[in-house]
Amino acid sequence: MSFEISNELINQVKHLIKDEGDTRLQDMLSEIHFADIAEIIEELNLYQATYLIKLLDSEKSSEALMELEEDFRERILDNLSVKEIAEELEEMDTDDAADVIAELPEDRAEEVIAEIEIEDEKLAEDIKELLTYEEDTAGGLMAKELVKVKETWTVAGCVREMRRQAEKVTRVHSIYVVDKDERLKGRLSLKDLLTASAKAHISEVYIPKVDYVNVDTDGEEVARIMQKYDLEAIPVVDHETTLVGRITIDDMVDFIKDEAEKDYQMAAGISQDVEADDNVWELTRARLPWLILGLFGGLGSVFIMEGFEELMTNPKYKSLFFYTPLIAAMAGNVGVQSSAIIVQGLANDNVKGSLWNRLLKEIGLSLINGIALALLIIVFGFIMNYEISFSLTIAAALMSVIIVAALIGTFVPIILDKRGIDPAIATGPFITTSNDIFGIFLFFYIAKLILHF
Amino acid sequence: MSFEISNELINQVKHLIKDEGDTRLQDMLSEIHFADIAEIIEELNLYQATYLIKLLDSEKSSEALMELEEDFRERILDNLSVKEIAEELEEMDTDDAADVIAELPEDRAEEVIAEIEIEDEKLAEDIKELLTYEEDTAGGLMAKELVKVKETWTVAGCVREMRRQAEKVTRVHSIYVVDKDERLKGRLSLKDLLTASAKAHISEVYIPKVDYVNVDTDGEEVARIMQKYDLEAIPVVDHETTLVGRITIDDMVDFIKDEAEKDYQMAAGISQDVEADDNVWELTRARLPWLILGLFGGLGSVFIMEGFEELMTNPKYKSLFFYTPLIAAMAGNVGVQSSAIIVQGLANDNVKGSLWNRLLKEIGLSLINGIALALLIIVFGFIMNYEISFSLTIAAALMSVIIVAALIGTFVPIILDKRGIDPAIATGPFITTSNDIFGIFLFFYIAKLILHF
Repeated sequence: MSFEISNELINQVKHLIKDEGDTRLQDMLSEIHFADIAEIIEELNLYQATYLIKLLDSEKSSEALMELEEDFRERILDNLSVKEIAEELEEMDTDDAADVIAELPEDRAEEVIAEIEIEDEKLAEDIKELLTYEEDTAGGLMAKELVKVKETWTVAGCVREMRRQAEKVTRVHSIYVVDKDERLKGRLSLKDLLTASAKAHISEVYIPKVDYVNVDTDGEEVARIMQKYDLEAIPVVDHETTLVGRITIDDMVDFIKDEAEKDYQMAAGISQDVEADDNVWELTRARLPWLILGLFGGLGSVFIMEGFEELMTNPKYKSLFFYTPLIAAMAGNVGVQSSAIIVQGLANDNVKGSLWNRLLKEIGLSLINGIALALLIIVFGFIMNYEISFSLTIAAALMSVIIVAALIGTFVPIILDKRGIDPAIATGPFITTSNDIFGIFLFFYIAKLILHF
Repeated sequence: MSFEISNELINQVKHLIKDEGDTRLQDMLSEIHFADIAEIIEELNLYQATYLIKLLDSEKSSEALMELEEDFRERILDNLSVKEIAEELEEMDTDDAADVIAELPEDRAEEVIAEIEIEDEKLAEDIKELLTYEEDTAGGLMAKELVKVKETWTVAGCVREMRRQAEKVTRVHSIYVVDKDERLKGRLSLKDLLTASAKAHISEVYIPKVDYVNVDTDGEEVARIMQKYDLEAIPVVDHETTLVGRITIDDMVDFIKDEAEKDYQMAAGISQDVEADDNVWELTRARLPWLILGLFGGLGSVFIMEGFEELMTNPKYKSLFFYTPLIAAMAGNVGVQSSAIIVQGLANDNVKGSLWNRLLKEIGLSLINGIALALLIIVFGFIMNYEISFSLTIAAALMSVIIVAALIGTFVPIILDKRGIDPAIATGPFITTSNDIFGIFLFFYIAKLILHF
């Protein structure tokens, strides 16, 4: 069933825009889903994209706008008048409208809000309220659209009222029940409403147990709660438990995906949200800082090895220098593995037990891995006809490096997390670089101890 | 609002189990959500957990069972009789019931199905059907629970029928409309049903455009479609477009999260789905293979450097050996960055344009990053009082390494993807290891070319 956007279709759209074939364009696009229209728009240049947004019905263009990349949307909005932007926003859900306004330059944002105020005072008020919450909190993620009823109403009255309110709400997940002061009391499903007697009072049929979050609950916590309890929507209350908005699962899916992508990129040493099709400068900005960090780490290793330079003149020990990339790689790999497991565990809230137990476990794990790898090194040395003392030295040094690397990889994220810093920054290049330096120092230091030179 | 499970509560539960205080236990747990009960159960030992599952109402225990870790659930089920398992499964959604049966040993699975057949023939049939589909396809992910109506019915008849069907369906997202041969024709929202005239026929009010997937559509594709079109449920049809099931967004959220975690772990060199609290052997199995891969890579570098051994005797050039960890680190970091961006782009379907353009872009990007890093190397050489020719050699070699590493990181995932292999395996240790070897070889080779020895 998946709709495929062909090059042919895109060319046709481009031609029609050029020829100003408005009616044909409208006909052609009327059957296409807004998410697909957004994909078509991303293939167009700025002029063509703006043309299409202006041409389409605001109901459709507003939804398509929300699906575009932020940069491209901003550039299109730059080409629209204040009135045109206001028209788009009036068709959006309040959370999307507030997000778009937050992207606009300040003075233009004020003009747009003033314009909306003329048409729909309530909407302007809602948007202004949403703008006061911090991004990535429940307040910043929620929309004002919801269906609420008073506990004193009858089911019949509730159905009437619901029909009225539901016009503005695309999807009704739950009907929220509030008291006379708008405080959240419980919820009611549409199914319950369909099956209850028309004369019953809401207070008799509603479910008083309802999960909710506070406006300043962290977005990640909202995601965790919605996932844990399989919720499709969650009401948001303020500090007086007044119902102020709701968050739907489709917004959370986007949030969860964005967070996962951010963590993944962080682990790969990419510091901003970039995509394969971003331009070279954006990609450089995201990548170069981590490479510079890696470079400094490498230069640190140069320093350390210069301290062991005299070894090179000893024909018996100079081969140690051939092992530095191996040591650095093992230190890096072990560190990244340990930190990835901890970072994920912290995110999923399943890092339990005492630090002392975790320490013992990591040491145990490192010993097992280390012994296996050390045996391989000894076999390799045997094949290469190394002196056994040399092989044993490499093996022993490797084991120490693995233990230290695992401990760094485990405890740096835990410490960062305890201090309220996102532990994900400790994965990837950060751990690799510090483990490279520690690993190489340890390697030569232990080799020196064992070989007594 | 988040419910916190205190140690006190867990101890209380343990004591009550020991004292067989069944009524008090039931009272205490009756108000607690099944997801929280699952968390409590995970803190218990096998005996206690089994006791609690047997004690609780199947309605609640079945849901809690589904939230447990697979291993632990299997061990609890080992302690239940065939009849007890059947009772749990009868309370589950069909997709969950099928998943649980798939986890059981074959003969036991057959006994459980036979037991279910006695109570509820239709359910046994549904489960058997679901077991025929492959895991991670729409068929394997879907549940049989859905509400469907015939296009010829009236709205009033539909509401009646819906009430009947909805009893078995926890959440009604959409009502699906089918023709007399059960072929999917369209859908109807509950909201539409509430607002339509009771006498109207379904054929007049339903929405004929409906997104659907086929039983053998890949799970990732289902996730992509549901996300793109913001769907909360999607109907699944067989090859004759007969409606056979539906997938809900809460199951997809779990699927999306699992996929993201798998990719993240793959990038970190962890090959199975492990968690921080898994035991040392499970963690070793997931981690050691990648470390061995890294070890072989490191030994490859040893070989390469032995080929350039004569350099060590030259006091002017021996410092080259101090730079190998730096070169390996840069090759690894650049490769991981490139591959992470491509892997993510492939997953999100936004790697567009020709390979040739991508090649030019990666080279451009590498040149910019390479020049920046080369300048830093030259500054460092100046501070360290290196000969300028030596610094230039390192800088030139570093730039070549970066270009090659970026190309490997970019094109290995693209090639794997074209061959139908999951490109995510090309991230992490795989890229790092191959780039280490290539990088070090290239470094010495170029140094040799420039320094003419």
